[in-house]
Amino acid sequence: LPPPDIYQRALQVEGPSTMYGRYTQELGVYAKEEAARLRDGGVRDGGGVRRNTSVRSRAADLLEYEKDPCAKCQLCASRCQKFLISRVGEDWIFLILLGLLMALVSWVMDYAIAFCQEAQKWMYGGLDSNMLLQYIAWVTYPVVLITFSAGFTQILAPQAVGSGIPEMKTILRGVVLKEYLTFKTFVAKVIGLTCALGSGMPLGKEGPFVHVASLCAALLSKFMAALFGGIYMNELRNTEMLSAACAVGVGCCFAAPIGGVLFSIEVTSTFFAVRNYWRGFFAATFSAFIFRVLAVWNQEEETITALFKTRFRLDFPFDLQELPAFAILGIACGFGGALFVYLNRLIVECMRKQKTINKFLLRKRLVYPALVTLLVSTLTFPPGFGQFMAGQLTQHESLVALFDNRTWCRQGVAEEFDYISHHHAWKHPQVNVFITLILFIIMKFWMSAVATTMPVPCGAFMPVFLIGAAFGRLVGEIMATMFPDGIHADGSVYPIVPGGYAVVGAAALSGAVTHTVSTAVIVFELTGQISHILPVMIAVILANAVAQSLQPSLYDSIIRIKKLPYLPELGMGHHEKYNIRVEDIMVRDVRFITLNSTYRDLQEMLLTGQLKTLALVESRDSMILLGSIERLQLQSLLSLQLGRQRRLEYLRQLAQDNGTHDHLPSLTTDSTPSSPCTHTNLNASANAGARVRGRQGWAGAKSGLGWVVAIAEWEEQQLDEPVDFKNCKIDPAPFQLVEQTSLHKTHTIFSLLGLDHAYVTSMGRLVGVVSLKELRKAIEGSVTVTGVKVRPPLASFRDSGNTTSVSEVTELHKLCIRHRGLSLPREPNPPDVEDHRNKTCLHPGKKCFWSL
Amino acid sequence: LPPPDIYQRALQVEGPSTMYGRYTQELGVYAKEEAARLRDGGVRDGGGVRRNTSVRSRAADLLEYEKDPCAKCQLCASRCQKFLISRVGEDWIFLILLGLLMALVSWVMDYAIAFCQEAQKWMYGGLDSNMLLQYIAWVTYPVVLITFSAGFTQILAPQAVGSGIPEMKTILRGVVLKEYLTFKTFVAKVIGLTCALGSGMPLGKEGPFVHVASLCAALLSKFMAALFGGIYMNELRNTEMLSAACAVGVGCCFAAPIGGVLFSIEVTSTFFAVRNYWRGFFAATFSAFIFRVLAVWNQEEETITALFKTRFRLDFPFDLQELPAFAILGIACGFGGALFVYLNRLIVECMRKQKTINKFLLRKRLVYPALVTLLVSTLTFPPGFGQFMAGQLTQHESLVALFDNRTWCRQGVAEEFDYISHHHAWKHPQVNVFITLILFIIMKFWMSAVATTMPVPCGAFMPVFLIGAAFGRLVGEIMATMFPDGIHADGSVYPIVPGGYAVVGAAALSGAVTHTVSTAVIVFELTGQISHILPVMIAVILANAVAQSLQPSLYDSIIRIKKLPYLPELGMGHHEKYNIRVEDIMVRDVRFITLNSTYRDLQEMLLTGQLKTLALVESRDSMILLGSIERLQLQSLLSLQLGRQRRLEYLRQLAQDNGTHDHLPSLTTDSTPSSPCTHTNLNASANAGARVRGRQGWAGAKSGLGWVVAIAEWEEQQLDEPVDFKNCKIDPAPFQLVEQTSLHKTHTIFSLLGLDHAYVTSMGRLVGVVSLKELRKAIEGSVTVTGVKVRPPLASFRDSGNTTSVSEVTELHKLCIRHRGLSLPREPNPPDVEDHRNKTCLHPGKKCFWSL
Repeated sequence: LPPPDIYQRALQVEGPSTMYGRYTQELGVYAKEEAARLRDGGVRDGGGVRRNTSVRSRAADLLEYEKDPCAKCQLCASRCQKFLISRVGEDWIFLILLGLLMALVSWVMDYAIAFCQEAQKWMYGGLDSNMLLQYIAWVTYPVVLITFSAGFTQILAPQAVGSGIPEMKTILRGVVLKEYLTFKTFVAKVIGLTCALGSGMPLGKEGPFVHVASLCAALLSKFMAALFGGIYMNELRNTEMLSAACAVGVGCCFAAPIGGVLFSIEVTSTFFAVRNYWRGFFAATFSAFIFRVLAVWNQEEETITALFKTRFRLDFPFDLQELPAFAILGIACGFGGALFVYLNRLIVECMRKQKTINKFLLRKRLVYPALVTLLVSTLTFPPGFGQFMAGQLTQHESLVALFDNRTWCRQGVAEEFDYISHHHAWKHPQVNVFITLILFIIMKFWMSAVATTMPVPCGAFMPVFLIGAAFGRLVGEIMATMFPDGIHADGSVYPIVPGGYAVVGAAALSGAVTHTVSTAVIVFELTGQISHILPVMIAVILANAVAQSLQPSLYDSIIRIKKLPYLPELGMGHHEKYNIRVEDIMVRDVRFITLNSTYRDLQEMLLTGQLKTLALVESRDSMILLGSIERLQLQSLLSLQLGRQRRLEYLRQLAQDNGTHDHLPSLTTDSTPSSPCTHTNLNASANAGARVRGRQGWAGAKSGLGWVVAIAEWEEQQLDEPVDFKNCKIDPAPFQLVEQTSLHKTHTIFSLLGLDHAYVTSMGRLVGVVSLKELRKAIEGSVTVTGVKVRPPLASFRDSGNTTSVSEVTELHKLCIRHRGLSLPREPNPPDVEDHRNKTCLHPGKKCFWSL
Repeated sequence: LPPPDIYQRALQVEGPSTMYGRYTQELGVYAKEEAARLRDGGVRDGGGVRRNTSVRSRAADLLEYEKDPCAKCQLCASRCQKFLISRVGEDWIFLILLGLLMALVSWVMDYAIAFCQEAQKWMYGGLDSNMLLQYIAWVTYPVVLITFSAGFTQILAPQAVGSGIPEMKTILRGVVLKEYLTFKTFVAKVIGLTCALGSGMPLGKEGPFVHVASLCAALLSKFMAALFGGIYMNELRNTEMLSAACAVGVGCCFAAPIGGVLFSIEVTSTFFAVRNYWRGFFAATFSAFIFRVLAVWNQEEETITALFKTRFRLDFPFDLQELPAFAILGIACGFGGALFVYLNRLIVECMRKQKTINKFLLRKRLVYPALVTLLVSTLTFPPGFGQFMAGQLTQHESLVALFDNRTWCRQGVAEEFDYISHHHAWKHPQVNVFITLILFIIMKFWMSAVATTMPVPCGAFMPVFLIGAAFGRLVGEIMATMFPDGIHADGSVYPIVPGGYAVVGAAALSGAVTHTVSTAVIVFELTGQISHILPVMIAVILANAVAQSLQPSLYDSIIRIKKLPYLPELGMGHHEKYNIRVEDIMVRDVRFITLNSTYRDLQEMLLTGQLKTLALVESRDSMILLGSIERLQLQSLLSLQLGRQRRLEYLRQLAQDNGTHDHLPSLTTDSTPSSPCTHTNLNASANAGARVRGRQGWAGAKSGLGWVVAIAEWEEQQLDEPVDFKNCKIDPAPFQLVEQTSLHKTHTIFSLLGLDHAYVTSMGRLVGVVSLKELRKAIEGSVTVTGVKVRPPLASFRDSGNTTSVSEVTELHKLCIRHRGLSLPREPNPPDVEDHRNKTCLHPGKKCFWSL
């Protein structure tokens, strides 16, 4: 046995000072541990590679999509075949399970929310003898619920806060936000959302439900992968399933399958693959079906009908001459929607800027939601101000009342249908119904904008929908007052239906806030009537046109506020961006490795940079791009070279040569041959290096001095060897752009292929790299600053030049010179330049990109 | 003046034998003409380049999108800026105009069709004294109309025949089918369609209307371009507008804007850009609105309502326990849809195979439609067999009757609503209503399948929709007979609504035939009721699932029949295609030019090949891909080198040297300096060559012998010069794949980017090219042949090898060797191989792709 104290003491002392100070054990124990860790690591590896890559391109996913089945099932090819053939079948099963699960979650949550609200009403109703007690009951209940929701979410998973649609948009874009799809987040989101909605605050269910459905899909995928393995591990498939899940989320929230699919496409996608369409439709339909069937089974409904069923007359739903009023309603909703988005962002930004408030709120996270809730519930207290704004009604009740087919402003109109409505809440004995409606709209508008900034799981769709309905009802009532007998010129009297205006207003305002037109479809499915299709479509389109020209959508606004890694859309009409080219925005200082790189270069590269993939070029001289290598692959290469096994081999060799064979008996048992492809951690080799350094420090005092020095020498020698890429997986076709590619084209390609980065090449030479970050900066630089065009320095320079250089297609003339290493015509002495270049390139510390 | 007869006679004799035998004029006249042609050519050039490129990639369009504004408006930058900013505004105007126009077309056409059908009824009704006369009237009328339609279309524009959706799918994929978007086609389609539908045959309006709308958009684009210029010339924009036009087509045909947008997306797109969504919605809504407003103004309707308004009860539309019946209806419709597609294809293929029939029909093109019409109208003759299948009703009347909310099989049910229906036509005094329905379904099924193969503009959607409605009605009536008091277990009686089943059946069958789920939305918009949303969705999804697993969609089937250049979808579950890689399907014999190519090589390349773009590589040795050049660019290069101007200069030079200055006075006036970038035609130079050859033949007999020989020598000399690419536009980043790219990935990239071809490179070297054709072959090779897998020869070879080679990521080891020109390890003598290779490559006739 070797003298254990040498290593032990060396490692103990070294421990605190090293970066990876964990190994204070005896070397033999360490070796055993390491071997065990390696074995585990090998097993965990398939997932590990992927899990560590936080930003992945869809193109790369495609690659894995193809590799996976074969790579996974090399041992049992027949089983693999079976899996592949039955894949579609499993899609069906997965979607059915997802739909079922989400319908159950949605229904149970609705049930719990209704229970919460009933409890509040019961408390409030039971205390009607004392108004103070009544007030305390009315206020305390939501404050407690919201505070609990905020606290619970904060503790369990802060990612569950907010809508979730912005995050899903980012995730579907190809960026992996790991913590957003965990079980913890699921629990926090479901419970937090139930409490938040149960409080009766103006919050919505839709956005969070998209997130919940995606969580459900992700967890279900993991579960199925654990059970059946194989295809459930695939990332591309997961993306497909996530986009179906978004549709399920909206679908089972509103029992609106078609609207759900369309809304989720509009809200989360840039380019949509039509082949994924049926997935969303199938899952959303199944989910909506189960959701409504549960209601039937629970005796809430007699059969499957719409959530907010309306009963407008079918034979003459609206007059042609009412269309201008609908159009005006749509335009007004467009302005309103833009205002809502602006207000919402303003509140967040104000809070952030006020540093004292910000600091206080960050320390006492529960104070803000509690205060907001207190304010809102005080204002809606029914015996107080609430009586002027129908404060006693829940969102659901308000909406049912607003979609009512009676006209509120006129008494004594014969009712064809008789059903329970809460329209009496709107008719204050002293106050006109118009005042009530206007107060309702104004109060709910700012309340909703404030409430959605609370750190609880909540969406803004439903509150906005409600405000829109109220605004539509207001316009409808005004119209009904102006034309009591309808506008129709002929003999027959068709009175105006204000409920129809409410439906139109709801669709228009929610469409304006979210920048979608599918709210029209959601409205039809919610009300079960499609008779107002043309007014709804016209209003929604006009509202969208107005809102889109004024503000980003609410979700894009949140993406900007949260600074999520997302590629913004190129604004309509912002054509000055055509002038920006990739060469203006690319990073010229690319980190790369060459075929002749030594392991030392590799180590340096890995220790200094944090890039997920590195470019591989032929040589510093030629800079011809050969491919890209994942960081993990490089780490494994390095650890193979300097790893435990080779080190032990060398030690054994050394021991044999020196006749000190008995030094390493305990170690040899562990050095069983492991696969050369095993991905070990960089830590292992880095530790080894650190250890050597430590050993050198202690060498003078110990007898093993020469031995330690030998190891250090060996390491230095190993590091100087050129890298052997034989066992390294290289992506041979990373995405490439040319310098002249315009911003518009780059944006389209990045969106289409879901790229994270692309290399910029010129005649095969690597000259730069563009990532999402640079692209986003370039786009936002010219979008957010209105009036003043923020342009990259080179763009303006180019503009002042001659116009022929504007053309995208490069002249070959220039290319040739560049490629052959000749100088440009203005340079007098080509051979000198050639020599100089070679000299520069031989200098290892400097990267030479001849950006001629 | 030179002796004119020399050239004249030389050219006259040469005329018939040359390929370009047009120029029998005197050289001076020719030169003048040529100069004029060049001037014209220069003007027409912007469009000319594009027009000649019949297959264009969307990526290339993107390129032009960016270039266009700047290239067009170099003269007036401010105007250009103004154009760009107002572009969105012009989109609106364009879409409004398109919607207006299409609504007018649709309405006028409907009016004309109704008039035709009225006329037939009037004729038929007026002759009720004599059955023979009645029969002749009944039969002659449609035969004449259909024959006229077929003849008119045949003469004016044979492209107008058929549905048009398959062609639009191909065009939107990026393939330019020029003749499909001309004014002639528009006229032929509109008039032909009106006649065809007016005949009362089971034909549809929807498919052709998509085509008509696209024609309208294309013509409107051209018109606007002529008026305003600028952005209306852009191809990418045209594609966006065409996809909006497809939505308009469906939208104003059925007054179904949402369904129209979704249907057109499903039917024509593979990947859909969500940013184009609003265009379709806006235009379709506007169009549907105008279409219905016209009906109101014409006093047909009181207000804007659905086309086939239903009046099902709202409070209890269907029982939960009826859902299994709806599901079975959906599955049956799935099988029926697949059968319809199969039958339709079978008829076409039978006709094609029977060579004698085929020959006869090709000679007498009008016989087939006349015969089919005769057969169909004889069978539907109301006093004859027609009485058992409601033969007297038009499609519209039948559909209204089938969507009736009364139950036919029971008498004496109280009617809540009272409206005109044609249900008496279904109740034959002697025959059960079930028999009538079954006969109707069977007869219409094969009649529709046959009628849609006639060479007239016609679609299959509406007939299929009608058959589906009848089938649904049948199932509904059966249900109503089985459960006369409804299924509901509680006290209240809710009888079954067979009309609801008809709606579900119509959506399911049309969904199955077209492989779309948006027929569900169309159905809601058509009937104006959304109460049956869940049954419709369930049936449509099940029908799609069944039909998609059995047959391609009707449109894909027609694409295959017509052999349109389209990329088929990768079938679901056909995962064996993962095994095919690009290297198995690529064409290795790429046509390329090198930087050192001579003009002679260029000429050869242009004369022998028909490719639209040619690859440019560094040299035969290195084969490094530098870019691609359009054929037209090369033609212009060649004509610059050998063109009139240089030739004349040389002649003048020669004349000066020989002192025969007076030979060329008339020519010098024409040789005004033209821009070096002008694209002249290859013909010019080829003619020049031919002329020289001709001259040589006549040289012996004439005095100008030496002079002609000099010209010939000069030409030979010019052809041997290396090509000067200075003024040639090169696409520096043609799309590249690597050999190991799988078929699945290739397919995705081709679909996403709308590519036409992609070069296959290995470490920057060009090794092959893959075009749509190869890809289609590879996909269809493994899809169409069921059971037997047709695989490329190399794929099976690879499978038998070791499994490690399956991984997509190439081992660098191999790549390096290939790149550095070293031999593979198994080859013993690297230097020899090197020499041999160089020798091979120097041989100009042989292309060397070292497919190691």
